[in-house]
Amino acid sequence: MLNVMFNAKSVAVIGASETKGKIGNDLMISLLNYYHGDIVPINPKGGEVMGIPAHTSIKDYGYVDLAVIVIPAPLVLRAVRDCGETGIKNVVVISAGFKEASEEGARLEKELVEICNEFNINLVGPNCLGIMNTYNDMNASFSSDIAHKGKIGFMTQSGAIFAAILDYADKKNIGFSRLISLGNKAGVNEKECMENFMEDENTGVITAYLEGIVDGPGFIQASRKASKKKPVVVIKSGTTAKGSEAVSSHTGTIAGSDSAYDAAFSQCGILRASSLEEMMDFSRTLALFPLPKGNKVAIITNAGGPGIMTTDATIKAGLELANLTDETKQKLREGLPDTANVKNPVDVLGDASPERFGFALDIVLQDPNVDGVIYLVTPQSVTDPEGTAKVAIKHATKCAKPVLFSFFGGTRCEEAEKVLTDKMVPNYLYPKTAVTSMKALYDYTVIKNQEYPEPPKYDVDRAKVEAIIADARNRGVTTLGLESFDLLKAYGIPTVGTAITKTVEETVEAAEEIGYPLVMKIMSPQISHKSDVGGIKLNLYSAADVREAYEDMMENIPKLEPEAVLEGVQLQKMLSGGKEVIIGMIQDPTFGPTLMFGLGGTYVEILKDVKFAIAPVNEMEASNMIKGVKSYKLLEGARGENAADMASITDTILRISQLVTDFPEINEFEINPLMVFDEGEGALAVDMRLILKDE
Amino acid sequence: MLNVMFNAKSVAVIGASETKGKIGNDLMISLLNYYHGDIVPINPKGGEVMGIPAHTSIKDYGYVDLAVIVIPAPLVLRAVRDCGETGIKNVVVISAGFKEASEEGARLEKELVEICNEFNINLVGPNCLGIMNTYNDMNASFSSDIAHKGKIGFMTQSGAIFAAILDYADKKNIGFSRLISLGNKAGVNEKECMENFMEDENTGVITAYLEGIVDGPGFIQASRKASKKKPVVVIKSGTTAKGSEAVSSHTGTIAGSDSAYDAAFSQCGILRASSLEEMMDFSRTLALFPLPKGNKVAIITNAGGPGIMTTDATIKAGLELANLTDETKQKLREGLPDTANVKNPVDVLGDASPERFGFALDIVLQDPNVDGVIYLVTPQSVTDPEGTAKVAIKHATKCAKPVLFSFFGGTRCEEAEKVLTDKMVPNYLYPKTAVTSMKALYDYTVIKNQEYPEPPKYDVDRAKVEAIIADARNRGVTTLGLESFDLLKAYGIPTVGTAITKTVEETVEAAEEIGYPLVMKIMSPQISHKSDVGGIKLNLYSAADVREAYEDMMENIPKLEPEAVLEGVQLQKMLSGGKEVIIGMIQDPTFGPTLMFGLGGTYVEILKDVKFAIAPVNEMEASNMIKGVKSYKLLEGARGENAADMASITDTILRISQLVTDFPEINEFEINPLMVFDEGEGALAVDMRLILKDE
Repeated sequence: MLNVMFNAKSVAVIGASETKGKIGNDLMISLLNYYHGDIVPINPKGGEVMGIPAHTSIKDYGYVDLAVIVIPAPLVLRAVRDCGETGIKNVVVISAGFKEASEEGARLEKELVEICNEFNINLVGPNCLGIMNTYNDMNASFSSDIAHKGKIGFMTQSGAIFAAILDYADKKNIGFSRLISLGNKAGVNEKECMENFMEDENTGVITAYLEGIVDGPGFIQASRKASKKKPVVVIKSGTTAKGSEAVSSHTGTIAGSDSAYDAAFSQCGILRASSLEEMMDFSRTLALFPLPKGNKVAIITNAGGPGIMTTDATIKAGLELANLTDETKQKLREGLPDTANVKNPVDVLGDASPERFGFALDIVLQDPNVDGVIYLVTPQSVTDPEGTAKVAIKHATKCAKPVLFSFFGGTRCEEAEKVLTDKMVPNYLYPKTAVTSMKALYDYTVIKNQEYPEPPKYDVDRAKVEAIIADARNRGVTTLGLESFDLLKAYGIPTVGTAITKTVEETVEAAEEIGYPLVMKIMSPQISHKSDVGGIKLNLYSAADVREAYEDMMENIPKLEPEAVLEGVQLQKMLSGGKEVIIGMIQDPTFGPTLMFGLGGTYVEILKDVKFAIAPVNEMEASNMIKGVKSYKLLEGARGENAADMASITDTILRISQLVTDFPEINEFEINPLMVFDEGEGALAVDMRLILKDE
Repeated sequence: MLNVMFNAKSVAVIGASETKGKIGNDLMISLLNYYHGDIVPINPKGGEVMGIPAHTSIKDYGYVDLAVIVIPAPLVLRAVRDCGETGIKNVVVISAGFKEASEEGARLEKELVEICNEFNINLVGPNCLGIMNTYNDMNASFSSDIAHKGKIGFMTQSGAIFAAILDYADKKNIGFSRLISLGNKAGVNEKECMENFMEDENTGVITAYLEGIVDGPGFIQASRKASKKKPVVVIKSGTTAKGSEAVSSHTGTIAGSDSAYDAAFSQCGILRASSLEEMMDFSRTLALFPLPKGNKVAIITNAGGPGIMTTDATIKAGLELANLTDETKQKLREGLPDTANVKNPVDVLGDASPERFGFALDIVLQDPNVDGVIYLVTPQSVTDPEGTAKVAIKHATKCAKPVLFSFFGGTRCEEAEKVLTDKMVPNYLYPKTAVTSMKALYDYTVIKNQEYPEPPKYDVDRAKVEAIIADARNRGVTTLGLESFDLLKAYGIPTVGTAITKTVEETVEAAEEIGYPLVMKIMSPQISHKSDVGGIKLNLYSAADVREAYEDMMENIPKLEPEAVLEGVQLQKMLSGGKEVIIGMIQDPTFGPTLMFGLGGTYVEILKDVKFAIAPVNEMEASNMIKGVKSYKLLEGARGENAADMASITDTILRISQLVTDFPEINEFEINPLMVFDEGEGALAVDMRLILKDE
């Protein structure tokens, strides 16, 4: 839907100005410098702007593909309505003074959105820097220079980052396809940009700087699709508590919690950058290089030290050092000096000529065990960095494998860097950066090959849950506990045998039904420490035990707690063996229902060893949650124990996922613990807690 | 001891040459370009080298402060002997072809060391690039340009890193005091360089690239002293298994395990850099800026987005955002536009002039709550990066607090960067780098203020342990178990009541002495699963119980295991309550006895949640080991439990530290578990395992 905007054949500048320093002037210059379409200045005074006849109103001129508005906030509404009435469908509001500024501004912004909705206008901004499409030679922003042509599509919530990245990219010769400054995101948001960049054939990599996300579920859906077609690199700032505070005061968006962002990004194939540096390194790398088939890296270097450091970084990043074939080693041995190292990392020695580097690169690239090459050059006394760069580029571009260059030095490497920069090839100054960039390439290989099967749809008794919730609402209750185990049963989740009973006969009957051994607990709102008053009886093996326990409680507890109202007892099957896990859900403000998995007890509470995923999840995602916790090895059966029944945990997560997706009125949910038995022996929910949203 | 070498007033080049491309020529050029002392070329042909009369042998010329040797390896020995006989005490052997090359080379190197020892010669190298002292204008290396004058003393085990860092530093205008390429470290090693750089008044920061350490204990001692005087920044490569392999093949040094390096570095106040980038950033920062008094950072920015990212990075790094005083905020409010943000991060807005930046910086620096400032500039349309840099430098240099600059951009920031570079002030291109560098400053503040009290000396029965070890040696035994609990008692470590007995009478007597309840275990080398044959009896509460259990074992076990030799039984007091921890020790090849602490069971085995420290440790270090594990909270008394008796754990670590220091023949040691009771109730060793080194 944004294609007409990015490919606009005519652009009106509402607020065009002759006065230097005014944004209306900057914008005219930006457009005039490069754009070949019609430029229509709108200025209430009429006359000419920069030699082009100006119109006093857009209505006076008529339809354009895109209107860019740079007049004071209070006047923007009228201008946008004029656009609507003229049939214009794409408006970029650069003007500030809206939600980010004041309550009055927020009110104006709301009205602005209403007008755009009325006329079906795509609204970018307000409070933004504008947009660019290098393939349309269109710079509709107040950044004076248009970006270099290239494959990166970039959206940003921060105007300053828009300006800074453009300046950075200019120096480094990084090319872009489309850029958009999202501003307050009152209309067009990250989801629509994602969809547009995905479809744009000039865009090879989608890159985003985000502080918050307007439409979490929509963003997930769009990103999941987009990341199958092309890499998506996102930096999300405001990840710490203090950072999030700064977000609210900055753009007024509510930032989701970082764990939900992490989960969402990983579920939809987004490569998350942790800094601007990573964002740019990953984007440039992915825009340029072929993908490695696997994670086996060969290192070619002219010195041992940097080779070791790169090896360290490679292993730490989760990549592997390629084992070169005997054939490769033999060929290297024949062509390199005797003291060269022909094992990976291949050391071509300090006196290596460009040709020797090129020879080694050629041989190594042909090795079927090598998925990608990191090519390290340090400027030693006889090194020719420039020549080496030239040879390297020539050899590397012939190949379907990525070759990442790291010329580590300064003054003496300047020419080499220029050789690379001229071809838009990055020099990863530090070997470690080459490694993390190679990792990004490999990560995207994995993402691209990954299937996202739909979550399963279990046959459940939805009506039963509806009834339980309706009943709770009727009773004015928002927190449900194990007395609502029927809710789990309705979704096919096995629960430990439990009954709440009020008379001795009822209790004995229930006991016979559940089976032995049993534990009995007193039910009384006034008693918080049940065991102190003999309110917990373990190891009940028969009807007689149960009867005796019940009668004992009813007789003796009132003596200790005369004020307590005894509402009955709770019976529960005593379990032995098994491991406790927790499956929970919280509503994330951005992404909605967010599932959590962890091992019970200290692992969740003390070590915070948990994994999140946004619901609904498919089987792979559920399984990844389980495998993602550090204590996973305990479930696998460490220390001579049996493996736990993973299938049951996965199944329970999937069913909970379906439950919380079916019932968005569930605000929080937890099975704690789910008791998981040995492989093949299932799992049982022992307790649960469900909190409904306020009505 | 290396001062004569670095301050040499005369330098001989043994192997000086007229022939371009020869190292003996490069070296002459390097010296001639800058050096004011006497340069003495030595060449067997005599004549002149570069216009200076050459001598055929050093003996022919006589004493110089420093001889640099660049002749083929087999000739080096003779030349060094000549030096020795001439009274020369400082020799740098640049020539390769020694240990790194072949067995024959290793033999040569050994002889070389012997000659140097004979004549008391300081030997640098062999297989190195040479040394520099910018304050002596001496470039005795074959890197053609001398480094810029500055405060960083740099030692490196890799010649390539020597060359690359010099080239990098040239471009970035980073200044050095002394540089040394250590090569094979046959003579002078990192410890002696550490001591020399510590004493050198021109050196403000000690920086090292290391792949291994020759003298671990000496290095620790020297570094601990040095780091109290000036910051020590070290990058240690070869940290992963694969990396370490590369080390062995590269320089033949044996790399210690990385956990021991981490422990050692942290114990001796070394700032460990994880990459070349960090190494250079930390070193430059520490060389230039005053130390912050605390960890409270103020951020000044001209844009919200970068402010948020920097906030994120600040919190993640473990620093804090300063709370500006009301006075500061009031002053800022008066001097800044209405829409500026006067809370930290202070946003001076996109249209900020250099003066506005300078104003804000001045006010913020005066705030007593601010320990350091990060100053972020993004090049927006009206920004003047160069002017801003000039104003910023002027304001910042007046203050005793660090002000770190991040101009994030490219082309438009080049002039600003030049302004900074000319003054040797780094531009931290990415805000995150400014934060990690601020963190390094703060970390050094902490190191500088930290005391290292001596480890306590407990009054122990050393003779007893000597006797136990002697007895084991006599018996040909190298592994001692809980039968050697006396060894722990000799060092004042309480052990659980234990006895090994061979008759029923002995057993009953021992039981009465230990007290009840007890557990009894059969002792038999042939029985590995004691419980399967009834070889473990729990809950023995009386002499009668003990007698019965003993007799039962002796009667029934032979029926099930007729081949088994029953050597007797082991009695042990049954414990209840308490938490299991493990205290261990391994001998690290570099640093010697390395202590380990962790919580028992899954925490050590599955989660690898342990902390190391090189022995001997003082009380603070022992306490840091305990607090350093993630599961520490469990000891503190999470989930309503009581806190464990930390004092007893610390005490046990300290006593073990003394034990393994007193007895270097102990190769491995472990108390597993040490049962720790509630605060004030002590701890008991339940089992131990001690392995002696092979004789």
